[in-house]
Amino acid sequence: MNKNVYNIKGLNFIPIGGCSGVGMNLYAYINNDQWILVDMGMGFDGRLGKDLIIPSPEILIKNKTKIKALFITHSHEDHIGAIPYLWPIVKCPIYAQPFAVEMIKDKLSQFDLSKEVPLIKVSFNNKIQVGDFQVEFISVAHSTPESSALAITSPEGIILHSGDWRIDDDPVLGAKTDEEKIKQYGEKGILALICDSTNVFRDIKYGSEREVRKNLIELIKERKKNRILITCFASNLARLESCYCAAKESGREFVIVGRSLKKIERVAKLSGYFSEISAFLDEKKANSLDPSKTLIVCTGSQGEVNSALSKIANGIHKTIQVQKDDLLIFSSRVIPGNEKAVLDIQNSLMEKGVNIITDLDCEIHASGHPSKEELEHLYNLAKPNILIPIHGEKVHLYKHAEIARNYGIKNIVVAKDGDVISFSANEAKIVDTLNTGAFGVDGSKLIPVNGGVYKDRESLASSGVVSICVKCAKGAIRLQEMLCVGIFDESEEVEITDIKNDVASEIKLSLDGILKGKSPDKEKLKSLIRGLTKTIFAAARGKKPTVIVHLVE
Amino acid sequence: MNKNVYNIKGLNFIPIGGCSGVGMNLYAYINNDQWILVDMGMGFDGRLGKDLIIPSPEILIKNKTKIKALFITHSHEDHIGAIPYLWPIVKCPIYAQPFAVEMIKDKLSQFDLSKEVPLIKVSFNNKIQVGDFQVEFISVAHSTPESSALAITSPEGIILHSGDWRIDDDPVLGAKTDEEKIKQYGEKGILALICDSTNVFRDIKYGSEREVRKNLIELIKERKKNRILITCFASNLARLESCYCAAKESGREFVIVGRSLKKIERVAKLSGYFSEISAFLDEKKANSLDPSKTLIVCTGSQGEVNSALSKIANGIHKTIQVQKDDLLIFSSRVIPGNEKAVLDIQNSLMEKGVNIITDLDCEIHASGHPSKEELEHLYNLAKPNILIPIHGEKVHLYKHAEIARNYGIKNIVVAKDGDVISFSANEAKIVDTLNTGAFGVDGSKLIPVNGGVYKDRESLASSGVVSICVKCAKGAIRLQEMLCVGIFDESEEVEITDIKNDVASEIKLSLDGILKGKSPDKEKLKSLIRGLTKTIFAAARGKKPTVIVHLVE
Repeated sequence: MNKNVYNIKGLNFIPIGGCSGVGMNLYAYINNDQWILVDMGMGFDGRLGKDLIIPSPEILIKNKTKIKALFITHSHEDHIGAIPYLWPIVKCPIYAQPFAVEMIKDKLSQFDLSKEVPLIKVSFNNKIQVGDFQVEFISVAHSTPESSALAITSPEGIILHSGDWRIDDDPVLGAKTDEEKIKQYGEKGILALICDSTNVFRDIKYGSEREVRKNLIELIKERKKNRILITCFASNLARLESCYCAAKESGREFVIVGRSLKKIERVAKLSGYFSEISAFLDEKKANSLDPSKTLIVCTGSQGEVNSALSKIANGIHKTIQVQKDDLLIFSSRVIPGNEKAVLDIQNSLMEKGVNIITDLDCEIHASGHPSKEELEHLYNLAKPNILIPIHGEKVHLYKHAEIARNYGIKNIVVAKDGDVISFSANEAKIVDTLNTGAFGVDGSKLIPVNGGVYKDRESLASSGVVSICVKCAKGAIRLQEMLCVGIFDESEEVEITDIKNDVASEIKLSLDGILKGKSPDKEKLKSLIRGLTKTIFAAARGKKPTVIVHLVE
Repeated sequence: MNKNVYNIKGLNFIPIGGCSGVGMNLYAYINNDQWILVDMGMGFDGRLGKDLIIPSPEILIKNKTKIKALFITHSHEDHIGAIPYLWPIVKCPIYAQPFAVEMIKDKLSQFDLSKEVPLIKVSFNNKIQVGDFQVEFISVAHSTPESSALAITSPEGIILHSGDWRIDDDPVLGAKTDEEKIKQYGEKGILALICDSTNVFRDIKYGSEREVRKNLIELIKERKKNRILITCFASNLARLESCYCAAKESGREFVIVGRSLKKIERVAKLSGYFSEISAFLDEKKANSLDPSKTLIVCTGSQGEVNSALSKIANGIHKTIQVQKDDLLIFSSRVIPGNEKAVLDIQNSLMEKGVNIITDLDCEIHASGHPSKEELEHLYNLAKPNILIPIHGEKVHLYKHAEIARNYGIKNIVVAKDGDVISFSANEAKIVDTLNTGAFGVDGSKLIPVNGGVYKDRESLASSGVVSICVKCAKGAIRLQEMLCVGIFDESEEVEITDIKNDVASEIKLSLDGILKGKSPDKEKLKSLIRGLTKTIFAAARGKKPTVIVHLVE
């Protein structure tokens, strides 16, 4: 049997993505061969030309006929960003809250998929029956509106899939975490809690979004002169509204800069948010205003290369230029892996005389994920028999397991992507592992992250490439041309000629003999030429570049 | 005048490296055309095939006859690591403390330079006269022994060059910071303090090395079962000795693993350290011992790819294998930019069941750099007229300036690499900027970091390469062969053939006409072929690879 076709009785859980790093959330729940999926997210990895990464399509392809529905917990890219690439495989209905539906629609319109995808808006407390599964969306506070946990009732028991969540007694915009509902499920008996691990290294919960708003307003009111810029996650509507309030209270115009903020404004208004705000001011109009009368919100809090903030920092933004004594506020935290990119932006701006305030300086950010304190609060409400940590690097999942173990949860399974976890009689264990892994979205193609393409690019990146054209005729073999990319500096003309001469003589010397009277094996010849070229470069420059060989007659 | 030849009266300071990022420390002090250098360090940047980075040799080449001496503050790589590459330009005597001299010797022996370089051992309180400059080495506490600040007396006044330093009342091994001496210079009047900025974002100073030792011993004594590994900076002899003490007090054998630890052991013994320790146990002998009776110290606390720890984490170390419930202690902190590499190692080890303790869990690391508290203490002792922050990213230098400004220092200059700072009458200002920048040590060559080679590698890394061989004869032009690296997955044979056919037809269609009756311009033809190939790839795959074209007749 092909291992990625999964065919087993009872209740099973497979993290297809989401248990091998932050992002790429995609989970399957399976009961007697009926599959439902939860989330279909992208991951962030811009190395070696990847635009983004998504979970491997393989498990979905092999089991596509069994997949009955996709449930979306909330609208963040790491939960919906893979839909355009993977939904066409499964072609099942998608259930989501209204704001997430609008965000997905907006995304699909860029892929010409808007009309094909059956998107179903659900409300909290609706129960959706799909085969043996009944799914209820439960409100949770998070850094984007209408975020949900899912109560998944199966014949084998109830699973609480937490989604991304926190406890916030005053989230400003959107509902609080519905603790009462979770408690009710807890009283019925929750078989397993499948739970967010992103923020497990923090012990104490962040302040409420209300406090962040208060601090932002205060901070901005104090600064009467100069331009102020704020960067935050675009999808955090509450934070955006807080920035708007701060602008209003300090007599500044509220300006948004960056494509994803414009998209969020559009979708938010479609979903009934910001109804009392006429319109955010477009950047083009902002430039003619007194800088001390504007508050500019821009994308790029993670140092993303093409973001508005990155362009502003590098002085190449088409409308916004900063100057000495401007202020930039990072109302965000740095996602692990982005530290250097964020630092580079801060360096460039500081060189321009811009002052910078981050969440290390004052409380102007609150995470949307649960700290230890909040996790224990949830355990207490849900009283799960089993805990499976998801959504994190391995260090997060293991730390989460430790917190749960210390709390007293006995049955904890730390899984990796592709693991098949089977539930039975209040027990869970890994019974198998399917092939999965990440694929790079690379231009318009999907390429396996661990395959040959990225390995080859890694070599190209580290040592450059030599392309060699060799003429092979009448028993003689001669170098015609040698071209190099990513090896020689412009000043090294002499070195290029020297090495080219070495390669030419070595080809003549070593290979003429081989050719005498024989019809040569082309691939063998090419491999010999690659080998001798690498040896010459290694001796001359201490590196073995990638070598491409053309044989012409 | 060539701008990089610097010829001006009076006292000047040029950071050649060290003011545009942590690392690459290389500073010039110039008085009436007499130059002395302080430190000659490397920087860390392994991207695009760089082994390491060093400051541009250009300023040194242009002024080599004027450079009279190189003073080394201490033995860390970011202060001595560029000597093998840059000393051969200046060929001046090198003054350093005995431990640094031995470390430099060891390094030079790998470059066949041991006999050439005049290395002069100095003691604290010696005064070295070089032309108009008198230099005194002042003891400072830091994370490697015999670290120094330099009091540089010139006809224009006294400059205190801090080196890397901290205040530690019980550094365990090596001397404390000689506050009395600094105070004496302060009383004479210090014109300028040129000062370490690495740790400016910390307000309060770290505990002493003695406390770290106490905590390490306690932590290790508690764990009676299983193997314990510790990773720390190899050159921190005090920390190594602390690990040794912890091993002894807990009845474990002390084992070191990794090339740089073996080197440090050798050099330390040469310099009279560890004399009471017979010998550290080599890893080969450790494998036969009961894991619960060993304490293994290994390199790799920054997630370096070829370090012992990285190999252990990936299960490819030749002698050390970890197993469930082993413990790894990070007695270190993560240098900005290395977060993801360290996280990847932690992920791999956790997957093997290894428990991990870092300096976030308990106080098992102390930085060797000054916090705000220590900086203010130094200002108070030295009472400098001028402050120039060095050794940091821009964010560090500006934060340092803010601390100094708030303390009350009036004349502060935040400079970048290449800036010429001129001192006169208790004032300092940037009067010029020379060309500098980083060079990559790339195999056996030096390549400018901002030049074409790394730009080309960036493109290769992001989109791969197509090499095309085109035959051009009798007025007809035909594709002979198309080879691709870093573009197609193994499964894409059909796609390769399709695109090859497209390129072949397009070449025939667009270029045959151009050739009719004319003798073609080779470079123009190549450029047209590159263009049309890129267009075809962009349409088919959404990416424009690097294209190499061979024209044969």
